Amino acid sequence: MMPITPLNKDNCQFIQAKIDNKTKPLGALGSLEPLALQLALITQQRRQQHSDIFSIISCDDNANKISINKAAMLVFAGDHGINEENLSIAPSAVTKQMVLNFLHGGAAINCFCQSNDIELSVIDCGILEPLSEAEVALLVDGRVNGVNFFEQRLGTGTNNFSVAAAMSAAQVESGFEQAKLLINKQVNQGVELLLLGEMGIANTSPAAALMSALTTFSVDKCVGRGTGITDEQFAKKILLIEKTLQRVTLLQCEVEALSRADIMSILAEIGGFEIVQMVSAILTAASASIPIVIDGFIVSVAALVAFRLDKNVVNYLIFSHLSEESAHKLLLSELLSAQTYTEQNVQPLLNLGLRLGEGTGAALALPLIKAAASFYNNMASFESAGVTV
Amino acid sequence: MMPITPLNKDNCQFIQAKIDNKTKPLGALGSLEPLALQLALITQQRRQQHSDIFSIISCDDNANKISINKAAMLVFAGDHGINEENLSIAPSAVTKQMVLNFLHGGAAINCFCQSNDIELSVIDCGILEPLSEAEVALLVDGRVNGVNFFEQRLGTGTNNFSVAAAMSAAQVESGFEQAKLLINKQVNQGVELLLLGEMGIANTSPAAALMSALTTFSVDKCVGRGTGITDEQFAKKILLIEKTLQRVTLLQCEVEALSRADIMSILAEIGGFEIVQMVSAILTAASASIPIVIDGFIVSVAALVAFRLDKNVVNYLIFSHLSEESAHKLLLSELLSAQTYTEQNVQPLLNLGLRLGEGTGAALALPLIKAAASFYNNMASFESAGVTV
Repeated sequence: MMPITPLNKDNCQFIQAKIDNKTKPLGALGSLEPLALQLALITQQRRQQHSDIFSIISCDDNANKISINKAAMLVFAGDHGINEENLSIAPSAVTKQMVLNFLHGGAAINCFCQSNDIELSVIDCGILEPLSEAEVALLVDGRVNGVNFFEQRLGTGTNNFSVAAAMSAAQVESGFEQAKLLINKQVNQGVELLLLGEMGIANTSPAAALMSALTTFSVDKCVGRGTGITDEQFAKKILLIEKTLQRVTLLQCEVEALSRADIMSILAEIGGFEIVQMVSAILTAASASIPIVIDGFIVSVAALVAFRLDKNVVNYLIFSHLSEESAHKLLLSELLSAQTYTEQNVQPLLNLGLRLGEGTGAALALPLIKAAASFYNNMASFESAGVTV
Repeated sequence: MMPITPLNKDNCQFIQAKIDNKTKPLGALGSLEPLALQLALITQQRRQQHSDIFSIISCDDNANKISINKAAMLVFAGDHGINEENLSIAPSAVTKQMVLNFLHGGAAINCFCQSNDIELSVIDCGILEPLSEAEVALLVDGRVNGVNFFEQRLGTGTNNFSVAAAMSAAQVESGFEQAKLLINKQVNQGVELLLLGEMGIANTSPAAALMSALTTFSVDKCVGRGTGITDEQFAKKILLIEKTLQRVTLLQCEVEALSRADIMSILAEIGGFEIVQMVSAILTAASASIPIVIDGFIVSVAALVAFRLDKNVVNYLIFSHLSEESAHKLLLSELLSAQTYTEQNVQPLLNLGLRLGEGTGAALALPLIKAAASFYNNMASFESAGVTV
């Protein structure tokens, strides 16, 4: 895995001055201002990566513009053995049904990608049953109804992690490798902003387990109701995850002391195929200086894992929304407080009570991200507009 | 003024059933769900208005789609005599400078309208100094840099309301008439969604005065810091408004007991030219069954005045964001709690810490409104997608 360059904060002062000189009172654009700062820093970083010049900061205004052309939404899908324990409102078969719904253009994420002009790709990371030959035959060049489909299966759903490791170390490595190749291909095709989503019945269970394993929060703080389980299912979910975490003896040591090998091993024990691939996608995009828009709880957990693997990833993350899943708030406060590109108290962009996943929150936040870029790139300064400060 | 038809809630059950049968867990799209319900109800209302048929609800699915084609942003600008008292961070000359900035395409609202594909119009309702001949000469068919300009001046800024009535009854009536004609023209041109913004140095002062006059909140609860005034200016702002409200003897009676004539008289005493025209714009759009997207504090006060004139207006309002202006929260809770189209606890769509005005919050919220329409119109049902409930 390529190391991630820490954001070069030497450029902050220049960028902040540019923001402060736009024709508006200081700070009047609220959260869009630190967002513009972040996007400008990341864009500079990317330009430096692709350039022989030591620093790109120049008097040429165009060279300092934010560039987030071509936004790609990748929805990673996988199934989870833990659903044998009846921890979800839906059977695992619904994961594939929803993947087909994505490919038919009928899901919420299709609507939001269409209304916000986002290219949508769906990745089968290991749903229970792969697409049939007839279903695959509908694809033309890997594409149907404007949606790209990628098969990157690591297995036929994970093992029930309350009984055995969810997957092998080799499966984790393979997931990392495949997702890395996919992201590099996207970047080579000109993608400058990555949005992540997921689909996987019962995936709040591995997500909650990973969150508890990789933070100081107890299991009951990390477990939520998913899409709406009963009290009984809720209690069982906590119990099973607590039992599982006792098995994973690595977790006796401090979170901060975990090595890369430890974290990869934890991913194998309690991860999910789509989560593993999202961790790698996040790390790969950040190492290419591409900002990553994080969706809800599951994607945020993938971001947490990525963060434990490489702390520098955190400044490349844009948190699109606060979901209704109760643990999400705790997790976001952990990740947001680790961001260092600004001293402002940054919040997720939206708080709409969403609890759907699929990348819906990320897709809905994209226009705000584009708006931040737009005001930074195009708004007049006090001088140029002849406005008296 | 045309009376506003109350929303026909008979259609609620049909619409809610359609939302609940989309391929997602019940309620998983959070605030977008009541928003879709509201938009569908308003669209039905508009179809009924334009149709001889008693009820349009039919088995034809297309007839039940939300229609919000052609979104128009109208930014109303005016100056305020009260700024003689030095209640703002900026001199009144900045209002015109910003109007010119709008026409040159350099303001935040230009960026957000452009990035969200919104037609922008600026209305001079009575800024201190009208556009010069040279400035007017830049307009081609009333348009420059993609921005429409309308001159609907009620005077050269209002009077200082702490000394005398801000304007005459005739000016209020003229403002109502001109804004009504403008909105009707927009509707005839196919506008199906109206977004409102404003520009006017010191206009938080008349807004705070109107809020206090037309609610039970005391002046100190209605006065905020605007774009960032000092403690001294803040104290003076409260004092001057309190003094003024004592002069307006009408305000001795209960808010609910105020007649239309009383409210028109209050508008003359303490209103602003842009506020008056926005009140009329809101009432006119609602009477044509066009949803109105409300921006920040000033536009919300215009909505409050409209609500006191005709209670039925409130279900046609979409509250785009909660601004940093402290009184905005109180005002929104008053208006939101009056909405009856849903039993859900509806919140403004965005909470980004904006405090700019110009319609920026409304423009930023438009993609969420389009997303609500998109999921309602285009998302598959469980049956059509073959997803097991």
